[in-house]
Amino acid sequence: MMRRLDSTQTDFDARIEQLTAWEEELDHAVNDTVREILAAVAERGDAALLSYTAQFDQLERASAAELEISQARLQQALRDIDADSRQALEAAAARIREYHQHQLQDSWQYRDASGNLLGQQITALDSAGIYVPGGKASYPSSVLMNAIPAHVAGVGQIVMVVPAPGGELNELVLAAAAIAGVDRVFTVGGAQAVAALAYGTETVPAVDKIVGPGNIYVAAAKRMVFGRVGIDMIAGPSEILVICDGSTDPDWVAMDLFSQAEHDENAQAILLCPDAGYLDRVAASIDELLPQMEREPIIRASLAGRGALVKTRDLSEAVAISNRLAPEHLELSVADPENLLPHIRHAGAIFMGPYTSESLGDYCAGPNHVLPTSRSARFFSPLGVYDFQKRSSIIMCSADGVQELGRVASVLARGESLTAHARSAEYRLKD
Amino acid sequence: MMRRLDSTQTDFDARIEQLTAWEEELDHAVNDTVREILAAVAERGDAALLSYTAQFDQLERASAAELEISQARLQQALRDIDADSRQALEAAAARIREYHQHQLQDSWQYRDASGNLLGQQITALDSAGIYVPGGKASYPSSVLMNAIPAHVAGVGQIVMVVPAPGGELNELVLAAAAIAGVDRVFTVGGAQAVAALAYGTETVPAVDKIVGPGNIYVAAAKRMVFGRVGIDMIAGPSEILVICDGSTDPDWVAMDLFSQAEHDENAQAILLCPDAGYLDRVAASIDELLPQMEREPIIRASLAGRGALVKTRDLSEAVAISNRLAPEHLELSVADPENLLPHIRHAGAIFMGPYTSESLGDYCAGPNHVLPTSRSARFFSPLGVYDFQKRSSIIMCSADGVQELGRVASVLARGESLTAHARSAEYRLKD
Repeated sequence: MMRRLDSTQTDFDARIEQLTAWEEELDHAVNDTVREILAAVAERGDAALLSYTAQFDQLERASAAELEISQARLQQALRDIDADSRQALEAAAARIREYHQHQLQDSWQYRDASGNLLGQQITALDSAGIYVPGGKASYPSSVLMNAIPAHVAGVGQIVMVVPAPGGELNELVLAAAAIAGVDRVFTVGGAQAVAALAYGTETVPAVDKIVGPGNIYVAAAKRMVFGRVGIDMIAGPSEILVICDGSTDPDWVAMDLFSQAEHDENAQAILLCPDAGYLDRVAASIDELLPQMEREPIIRASLAGRGALVKTRDLSEAVAISNRLAPEHLELSVADPENLLPHIRHAGAIFMGPYTSESLGDYCAGPNHVLPTSRSARFFSPLGVYDFQKRSSIIMCSADGVQELGRVASVLARGESLTAHARSAEYRLKD
Repeated sequence: MMRRLDSTQTDFDARIEQLTAWEEELDHAVNDTVREILAAVAERGDAALLSYTAQFDQLERASAAELEISQARLQQALRDIDADSRQALEAAAARIREYHQHQLQDSWQYRDASGNLLGQQITALDSAGIYVPGGKASYPSSVLMNAIPAHVAGVGQIVMVVPAPGGELNELVLAAAAIAGVDRVFTVGGAQAVAALAYGTETVPAVDKIVGPGNIYVAAAKRMVFGRVGIDMIAGPSEILVICDGSTDPDWVAMDLFSQAEHDENAQAILLCPDAGYLDRVAASIDELLPQMEREPIIRASLAGRGALVKTRDLSEAVAISNRLAPEHLELSVADPENLLPHIRHAGAIFMGPYTSESLGDYCAGPNHVLPTSRSARFFSPLGVYDFQKRSSIIMCSADGVQELGRVASVLARGESLTAHARSAEYRLKD
């Protein structure tokens, strides 16, 4: 069922390029709608938010205050969920917290030879908004992955928005918000939620940065408010690339491909292996396992539409292809993954060895599951504590230390015809 | 000439808010033009780039290859500029390089209690594009500030674009490119230059990230290509906020305000001081010094339109106001700046003590002069080496180490009805 490719095919480069291309269309209709929603919420605040929530989420509320979910309600959800789920959420949260603590960045300073103090003061954002998708794709793990890094960074106020279509709420999501230390939760979604977080309304506080994945309206809205607030990245469909040396149980690899494909029809799962016989065995596993899967139609559509089993000349060619595709998730399902690691140039997250399934990283290994998609691992990083910290440069010159600097600045400023700059530096010179 | 405000005025908050508000208009005409330019360059490559360059920069070239400036030409500029300028550029570059080396981030790893390996692999971007404004605002210092952090990060290829209106080139800019280690230079600008860097043409290579400030067309283009490539930030007009305790020579402070105001009429210079008599003395200095300034009309327009001398109750209120405004440049022109520093929440760069004029930081102190404007220091950082590095998460589980993780992942995945995720984790469990 999955397409088979071979890197020795003359048109291989073009085929893999075409298969992996994902152009988020600059949809004018979407952009126009989003622009209108942003303007309405910026101008009319709560009233617009209530009206869009009624229109898009079939959720009628008499006042914006009723869109808020209280801390007591979050705690209630935490008490009410089953013990296994609670324990698993808490174990995952503890591991995610520990991992992200390694990302905390500290202010630094040094003195140069002339005694001038230089450095950066690193501080947490005052506030952050986290967008959690609602309805059927409402995932408690996403709450942990978005809120915990903000919490570890020391963000003052974490505001979560999650749409509740028809009033439907996911208890696990609420419990996760309680565990992750979210400060306020509002049942709003879509572009109107992004607008509320960016501009603030009478009820929803404006935040400094908005993170978390959403649909095309959310992505368009984030792009438009970028600059007024910070945003994390623009998310496309989820992807996995598996590089296998043929030593992993084919059922395991088939299931790893499924775990990506089950997200949605546009998700992408690709396997690279130098062993054609192994690819046959994985194909057989896929055929055998697929009918057992709860999400079989989605998996089938994804694998048939965007998946591929690719025979490569060798592992190093597989790595080269991977570097070109810069996958969101990369499994190195090989006997010696540490040997390949230094050659990996671009990937959101790297899962090393046959025991490290992507799903472990999705939930509880510790690293973040909000990752760059659509080749953007070339320049974006996983969501992290660094997304919730920012830096201020520090410069302190002494009366002596300024002498050399002042002269250099004066020459350069005059070279740019900026004489106020020059004179401002020259004032600090002794004669 | 400058407006005087007092923090005890009942409408002070509203007045300072209004004075510092800067709304980059969502100008539909600009957006439509930019969208058209991006589409044309994406589709027709060099041909479109040549045609826009002729149209907007009055620069006619027979082929796109002629838009490139050779390394030999850069070296020639470096040889030809006067010795003082060369020495100053090289001294500044050395200091900027040293400072930015402190920002390099290293890969990190640790093992958890179960022996699983966790961490992040940190690598440089393959390529970066730096936008350098051309014409009268073409600054060699901007070349150093954009290119050196990329170079320190280890970016493989640094591509610079700088418009050359009517063919006019700034020799200092070319010399700075030689010093900073820029790999390729193209004389293109505007949205068409951003498009060329984002999509690539037959001649201009596509890059992974585009940094550097530009006009409103450049800003709109950067916003639109964000996601396909990385960008640094969206720049507004430049600003300085000076907090003074009244002990600094009023001429020095007046000149520091001028040095910001001389950039353009929209630049903003504000002084906060608890001593009304001192504000009078600075006002007198301004009146006296302004007629001597080469850029007097620009400075006058900026100070009259957007400047203010503000009397505050005390220094700590001045700090609170500064935190609300999150200035790009903040001078703490006070006797004990280290005492105030921990209370500064948001600022692009902090210049401490009377000897540390902003102009030192603009050119040669070491820190970057590409800084967040328009209150975006709440969430953006100075341009830095971290802008040219990205991270890949690393996870490697052993057969034993996966047992606990696998169980947690299984529970959470089933809670989200993602059974392929669950089964993929469960395969790795020893019953």
